[in-house]
Amino acid sequence: MNYTKPLARLVEEFQKLPGIGPKSAQRMAFHILKMTQGDVRKFSDAILDAKEKIKYCRQCFNMSSENPCEICSNTSRDKSVICIVAETRDLIALERTREYKGSYHVLQGLISPLDGITPEDLRIKELIERLQDEDIKEIILALSPSVEGEATSMYLAKIIKPLGVKVSRIAFGLPVGADLEYADEVTLARALEGRREI
Amino acid sequence: MNYTKPLARLVEEFQKLPGIGPKSAQRMAFHILKMTQGDVRKFSDAILDAKEKIKYCRQCFNMSSENPCEICSNTSRDKSVICIVAETRDLIALERTREYKGSYHVLQGLISPLDGITPEDLRIKELIERLQDEDIKEIILALSPSVEGEATSMYLAKIIKPLGVKVSRIAFGLPVGADLEYADEVTLARALEGRREI
Repeated sequence: MNYTKPLARLVEEFQKLPGIGPKSAQRMAFHILKMTQGDVRKFSDAILDAKEKIKYCRQCFNMSSENPCEICSNTSRDKSVICIVAETRDLIALERTREYKGSYHVLQGLISPLDGITPEDLRIKELIERLQDEDIKEIILALSPSVEGEATSMYLAKIIKPLGVKVSRIAFGLPVGADLEYADEVTLARALEGRREI
Repeated sequence: MNYTKPLARLVEEFQKLPGIGPKSAQRMAFHILKMTQGDVRKFSDAILDAKEKIKYCRQCFNMSSENPCEICSNTSRDKSVICIVAETRDLIALERTREYKGSYHVLQGLISPLDGITPEDLRIKELIERLQDEDIKEIILALSPSVEGEATSMYLAKIIKPLGVKVSRIAFGLPVGADLEYADEVTLARALEGRREI
């Protein structure tokens, strides 16, 4: 014997979550068993409810319970600038800065030949349609400085520029608070390359 | 705006789990959104099902979907030895060793005056009843070597010994594979104290 059956099943389900090993899964399962019936119900409802209600925005492919999403339907946001991100979580990170007031387009991934992800698998066709239908002045590429992020940025710049739209990319360099001495060479090279006159 | 409402709610619920901060909660929530409808249903069912079916064994207070639990109803186990643990998770850890073939008694906590937990809050009364009703030869105390574990062990030894039952305690010392040089003093003192002739 190890776990009683329903507990074994619960531990197994928790282990499917990202970053959760057997120990953490067990801890979480016991936590659930110690919660009140009402709290457990709330927890499971939140899961089902999120899965059921959250869909992709038909315009920018952000995850939202609204369609179009809260950002697309917000009239105070600048619709002439589109920031391109890979996933909704990147959009959320950018929103947290409270600096950006334009709209978004969520690609839902990055070009990655090794994983078999081609431009056709991403929401690039839909982006091009937006560029043709809407009056867009600037595209900001906010993709990670990884191999996939670079490839996708290059690809997008190549197909968007001919449409006469300005394409920019977020800056890469030393993170604020970092120590130059401990920065890796690639970041330092990027920081040098991206230097600006002051 | 930050999260769309059902997502905010889901992240909040995940954050209530032990050891889960905002970042992990967000990662888990997005994982749920990327799972299939069927898998999400299975996940939420596992939670509700475990909470609904798992109760405390009326005999040893182990958590189980059976009552009495799988261990108490297993006739091949030695009912004359009871191993006392604080929580079901300790019982599970001991079961994993496959060394122990007796029965258990889960106290559901440890005496802790600072947290207002007195002997009356634990399943000690029920333990004494078992000692009177059943033919018990030995009680093994398997409580953590913490202040609370020590206090509870002392308390139990004091009330059980007069009943004419042998009381033992699991050994504390150097963990297998540990380096003596790096062991803390308290563990080392315990290891010395618990030395056995070879």
